[in-house]
Amino acid sequence: MTAPTTVPGALDGLAIEVPSWAYGNSGTRFKVFGTPGTPRTVQEKIQDAAKVHELTGLAPSVALHIPWDRVEDYAALGDYAEGLGVRLGTINSNTFQDDVYKFGSLTSSDESVRRRAVEHHLECIEVMDATGSRDLKVWLADGTNYPGQDDIRGRQDRLAESLAEIYARLGEGQRLVLEYKFFEPAFYHTDVPDWGTSYAQTLALGEKAFVCLDTGHHAPGTNIEFIVAQLLRLGKLGSFDFNSRFYADDDLIVGAADPFQLFRIMVEVVRGGGLEPGSGVALMLDQCHNLEEKIPGQIRSVLNVQEMTLRALLLDRAALEDAQRSRDVLAANAVFMDAFYTDVRPALAAWREERGLPADPMAAYAASGYQKLINDTRTGGTQAGWGA
Amino acid sequence: MTAPTTVPGALDGLAIEVPSWAYGNSGTRFKVFGTPGTPRTVQEKIQDAAKVHELTGLAPSVALHIPWDRVEDYAALGDYAEGLGVRLGTINSNTFQDDVYKFGSLTSSDESVRRRAVEHHLECIEVMDATGSRDLKVWLADGTNYPGQDDIRGRQDRLAESLAEIYARLGEGQRLVLEYKFFEPAFYHTDVPDWGTSYAQTLALGEKAFVCLDTGHHAPGTNIEFIVAQLLRLGKLGSFDFNSRFYADDDLIVGAADPFQLFRIMVEVVRGGGLEPGSGVALMLDQCHNLEEKIPGQIRSVLNVQEMTLRALLLDRAALEDAQRSRDVLAANAVFMDAFYTDVRPALAAWREERGLPADPMAAYAASGYQKLINDTRTGGTQAGWGA
Amino acid sequence: MTAPTTVPGALDGLAIEVPSWAYGNSGTRFKVFGTPGTPRTVQEKIQDAAKVHELTGLAPSVALHIPWDRVEDYAALGDYAEGLGVRLGTINSNTFQDDVYKFGSLTSSDESVRRRAVEHHLECIEVMDATGSRDLKVWLADGTNYPGQDDIRGRQDRLAESLAEIYARLGEGQRLVLEYKFFEPAFYHTDVPDWGTSYAQTLALGEKAFVCLDTGHHAPGTNIEFIVAQLLRLGKLGSFDFNSRFYADDDLIVGAADPFQLFRIMVEVVRGGGLEPGSGVALMLDQCHNLEEKIPGQIRSVLNVQEMTLRALLLDRAALEDAQRSRDVLAANAVFMDAFYTDVRPALAAWREERGLPADPMAAYAASGYQKLINDTRTGGTQAGWGA
Amino acid sequence: MTAPTTVPGALDGLAIEVPSWAYGNSGTRFKVFGTPGTPRTVQEKIQDAAKVHELTGLAPSVALHIPWDRVEDYAALGDYAEGLGVRLGTINSNTFQDDVYKFGSLTSSDESVRRRAVEHHLECIEVMDATGSRDLKVWLADGTNYPGQDDIRGRQDRLAESLAEIYARLGEGQRLVLEYKFFEPAFYHTDVPDWGTSYAQTLALGEKAFVCLDTGHHAPGTNIEFIVAQLLRLGKLGSFDFNSRFYADDDLIVGAADPFQLFRIMVEVVRGGGLEPGSGVALMLDQCHNLEEKIPGQIRSVLNVQEMTLRALLLDRAALEDAQRSRDVLAANAVFMDAFYTDVRPALAAWREERGLPADPMAAYAASGYQKLINDTRTGGTQAGWGA
Repeated sequence: MTAPTTVPGALDGLAIEVPSWAYGNSGTRFKVFGTPGTPRTVQEKIQDAAKVHELTGLAPSVALHIPWDRVEDYAALGDYAEGLGVRLGTINSNTFQDDVYKFGSLTSSDESVRRRAVEHHLECIEVMDATGSRDLKVWLADGTNYPGQDDIRGRQDRLAESLAEIYARLGEGQRLVLEYKFFEPAFYHTDVPDWGTSYAQTLALGEKAFVCLDTGHHAPGTNIEFIVAQLLRLGKLGSFDFNSRFYADDDLIVGAADPFQLFRIMVEVVRGGGLEPGSGVALMLDQCHNLEEKIPGQIRSVLNVQEMTLRALLLDRAALEDAQRSRDVLAANAVFMDAFYTDVRPALAAWREERGLPADPMAAYAASGYQKLINDTRTGGTQAGWGA
Repeated sequence: MTAPTTVPGALDGLAIEVPSWAYGNSGTRFKVFGTPGTPRTVQEKIQDAAKVHELTGLAPSVALHIPWDRVEDYAALGDYAEGLGVRLGTINSNTFQDDVYKFGSLTSSDESVRRRAVEHHLECIEVMDATGSRDLKVWLADGTNYPGQDDIRGRQDRLAESLAEIYARLGEGQRLVLEYKFFEPAFYHTDVPDWGTSYAQTLALGEKAFVCLDTGHHAPGTNIEFIVAQLLRLGKLGSFDFNSRFYADDDLIVGAADPFQLFRIMVEVVRGGGLEPGSGVALMLDQCHNLEEKIPGQIRSVLNVQEMTLRALLLDRAALEDAQRSRDVLAANAVFMDAFYTDVRPALAAWREERGLPADPMAAYAASGYQKLINDTRTGGTQAGWGA
Repeated sequence: MTAPTTVPGALDGLAIEVPSWAYGNSGTRFKVFGTPGTPRTVQEKIQDAAKVHELTGLAPSVALHIPWDRVEDYAALGDYAEGLGVRLGTINSNTFQDDVYKFGSLTSSDESVRRRAVEHHLECIEVMDATGSRDLKVWLADGTNYPGQDDIRGRQDRLAESLAEIYARLGEGQRLVLEYKFFEPAFYHTDVPDWGTSYAQTLALGEKAFVCLDTGHHAPGTNIEFIVAQLLRLGKLGSFDFNSRFYADDDLIVGAADPFQLFRIMVEVVRGGGLEPGSGVALMLDQCHNLEEKIPGQIRSVLNVQEMTLRALLLDRAALEDAQRSRDVLAANAVFMDAFYTDVRPALAAWREERGLPADPMAAYAASGYQKLINDTRTGGTQAGWGA
Repeated sequence: MTAPTTVPGALDGLAIEVPSWAYGNSGTRFKVFGTPGTPRTVQEKIQDAAKVHELTGLAPSVALHIPWDRVEDYAALGDYAEGLGVRLGTINSNTFQDDVYKFGSLTSSDESVRRRAVEHHLECIEVMDATGSRDLKVWLADGTNYPGQDDIRGRQDRLAESLAEIYARLGEGQRLVLEYKFFEPAFYHTDVPDWGTSYAQTLALGEKAFVCLDTGHHAPGTNIEFIVAQLLRLGKLGSFDFNSRFYADDDLIVGAADPFQLFRIMVEVVRGGGLEPGSGVALMLDQCHNLEEKIPGQIRSVLNVQEMTLRALLLDRAALEDAQRSRDVLAANAVFMDAFYTDVRPALAAWREERGLPADPMAAYAASGYQKLINDTRTGGTQAGWGA
């Protein structure tokens, strides 16, 4: 197709939640590099997130991580965020950094540990009550490193019990989304390793429990868009954690490693109604900017999602269905690829300008002086990072 | 532990179903090598299977594949098998070799194709009525090779409809087991690619539908014993297709590629009650003897399962639980490995002799003259193979 | 960048060799589907290849496969090809379909088998003498399925000896290219599994021996463009076998599974001088059109290579180097992605029209009536395929 | 075979070098758990290593990591080690933890960074001069996270230059071993990702340069024993870094994840002469004891290597060659598996007792009181770990 000159209205509602921790330092077990301007407080993280939204119009909410973002007064924090034009979003729990969780948290056979992990989640729901957040996201580092280390089956049963207790505490309009991950930090077995496990567990919980799909948490070769289609079909796709990967959970910028995969995923999101108002599918980033600048890294990320969503919306479904119906493999693939190869960037630049946004948010950020400002002013204190 | 001198009674009930097609020729897309003595008829396949059972006491039933093993009179075929000391087992459908199924079978958007595929399964259930088989095993080659080739979501919905119609025809005591496979022969998407999909589909069907786990049908690195534990926990593990692999669906002899993995799988089977009478978990082989002799290949396979099951039964669960409870990772792993490293072969030789079986079934087969007999007499006709 | 209006001259020299076997039937071990119009003879394959070249200007030569394409008079075959506007290219040997090669060919410890395999390659060089082909491509199915089956080390030594004897027979201007493959049809070990082995073996042979890189023959996650860069650096990149894959050696249309990977590969080809006249890097297709139409499948393939090569040529290297030098990760990546996201299709359509080629070769083929002609006239005989 | 009662003499020479850093804390990017008794100094690490050797007789040398183990007086450190019954071994460089190496070290296009990295290696050779170490082991974290981030080809050329300068400084009897790694910490491309690259680079350097094979540094499914056989054949196998993995570079205890793979590797080591005096193949551990106790973790590791080496030595090579020669796949595999399934533990217990070593080193350690001693006395200070 020729490059589009207008943008479907469906794109107007696109909102991508950014994680507070993306603005802090991250790295590998080998090294975490620090950078100038890194936030020291949750407020500074929110400032950075707000800058991303200001320049893109795409990131109206910020996910928090407890305890990294723990504050005394969450209502005040919410007001602070709103003052900057964004709001607080998903609350992420953390049961992987306390020494007590060395051998598990919600799955632990040590009742005191399991109790503590459950209580932590109840605290997170309290935070949600205060912030008005809808979603509690549960990602567990639980697992084992050696065969025989623990009883896989018993852990699964305890997981079910723990989740049930947390689920029971959810208020009206609140949801629990359970993330799965293939491996890491556990290296033999992970207690929620695949969508099947998250589906089975959330199905047992009830209608307020959903699956969180992190695009980097699959075995090599996994067809992720199939899982997207399946979870939408089953009514259990709660949210995405977007990022990209060449190898493991590399947490690279979404769309950077395999842009065509992101296109295929967004095609299934559109196909399955995931962009429609009320679908309940939350689009979030979960990335690590180990080497690149963090704020422009986030800007690049939300733009990548926007560009690929637009390509998915441009897919000529009528032509596609015609070709599919006639079993013309090459014709169907050609319609599909045509949307992918279309250059949507000029149309999006125009779309932005119509809305008073900079045509090129990356350039606008570079020109804004914001990075220099934070580099100069965020001195002293402890830079935020995992564990901070 | 020191080598065991006796064998737990639980091993007595071990039964491994062998597939009729393992006795025919198989190969890769590059070449199918023929071998002397290959059966030309289903009766000859059953003869070979009966020889495996005669020498091992482990393989009392033979799975059939329709249409490869289609006969006029299934009752007569059952009588023939019983005359040789074995019985007919699972009925496997085939919707991947007719030209009409080029673009799908139970998932096809061509109603006439889908009708034909459903009817084929109804025919299989008729065969089951005649043979007294319990299980209808459904493995589908359905999928696509190119993004956009077909509508992934629509195919899943049609799959559900097709399966529901087949399921409705099941008689009392009959079951449907739905096998999943990561890829091949489809190379972009497969309609039942993972246990989650098979679980979701069989859950929707009802209590007579189960998941079939083929040990070669997973993404690289997948923790298969976790899936075993999970499916047993969910009450949905219907059957195993045993084989082994280094790369893809290599269909090598079970236990040949990663014996420790087979051990871990059998440990979870035992842990989850899968060996108990009435568990409903069927153990089957599904392998290709491309290079090795077929009958001794099958003997080797059932022996491998038996040896590893015994190791799993010897696992000192009390000591294991003690070590697990004390979070002593190395101690727990040591108990686990101790069972794996125990040499169970002498005890099994004695166990066989007590039952009038040859102590060394492989040697007994070599000495039996059976191979020479079939090499000499099975001349002319068409050797069985995939598609024969 | 804005869509280009002109095309760099470097693209004019782009030539992609097509394999004769792509026009025959292919499939998986489960099923080979036949299609109307499939060639019965090598001449008909060449007709089809010539049609691809006629419509694209990109495929001036056809690779042959011996014995599939064996004829009495190769000089006459060459004349036939030239009469259709194409020429005969690489000669591919085949040591995987004779029964004698069940356990190996050039690596066999059976001297008579090894002799036969060597002689087959000498015959292939005779064919090259007759056709004027430059390259002998050696891909071996050699390997084992089970640990212990054979002596890995001894096989490697014999491989070296066999190759040395073949190499010694090469005439002036002739080359040997040794292809590597991760697995299949062997499932435990493959005798030339990786570029390191092909490099070590061809290094030992001498300056007329090179590595053939098939883009589908790597382990999951392998960075193929790194290997391209390395082999160009070492002066040992002889040729490409282009195709694409999601899982194993799927042999899908090049660029279909991961277009961005193809872009990265072509960027390294350009960077390393692989497109320059005299580089000696041969670009070939090696694909299987199991489900899609074969001739348009080939047209689509050479167009994909052309489009991605143009994107690679459009890469703003000065800007890229600037960003790299300043360690601006996001800026460097942005320059890189800008070339990838540029829509080159209009410029290529114009480029074609300037040269008297159809602007849209796929549409031109559909409108040409050629498919109907061959469907109607190629009746009777045996359709070509692997082994035919 | 029946369990052996004696142990081949070849086992007497088995020596496995332990890494000083295995006794310090390690973990994942998510969390590093501390444990009581962790060494604070290199001397305490050597104490722990000496304890492993005292109880097993298998670990006579300790590898150092510079700068983690930097001291003023290396000769004194060597004397200290010898006083405890061990000696200092391989010197490992580190160019991944200084901020300057964020974008590369030996491959950097920043000359000052590259100079610093080269100088660091020259310092390491000075340490070797002082300690009498033979090997300089070079593992590089160099690579990029995003396509386009840097020039892959240029980095390879600079790597060659840097290595040449380091190599030139090697004294008589000193060697450089270049380790390769598939990925991590770089997530798009790694500058020495595979054995082919390490082979090509060390071949260019000369006869004192070798490849280091870390068993955890390969793509999924890679046949590692093939690489072992190939490198031994090419005379370039310098050393092993032993560990095991289910997924990525998990750094688990060697033999824990896939004991059969360790067996196959040791079979090729024996087959290729790698255990022979003068072979120059160094066996080392490189592991992380994230969850398990470190000293017994190391004891378990060297015992695993010893047990599997004995199984490899027990392989009945005459019978294996007979079966291989007769192309009896099942017989050859049976000979191979027989050695693997043989329980060598009683014979090794006897072997130990003959040498005045505890029959069960794990139990002896538990009974020794050493762990309590170090738990009680190693208080205060900073526990060693990566970066300490």
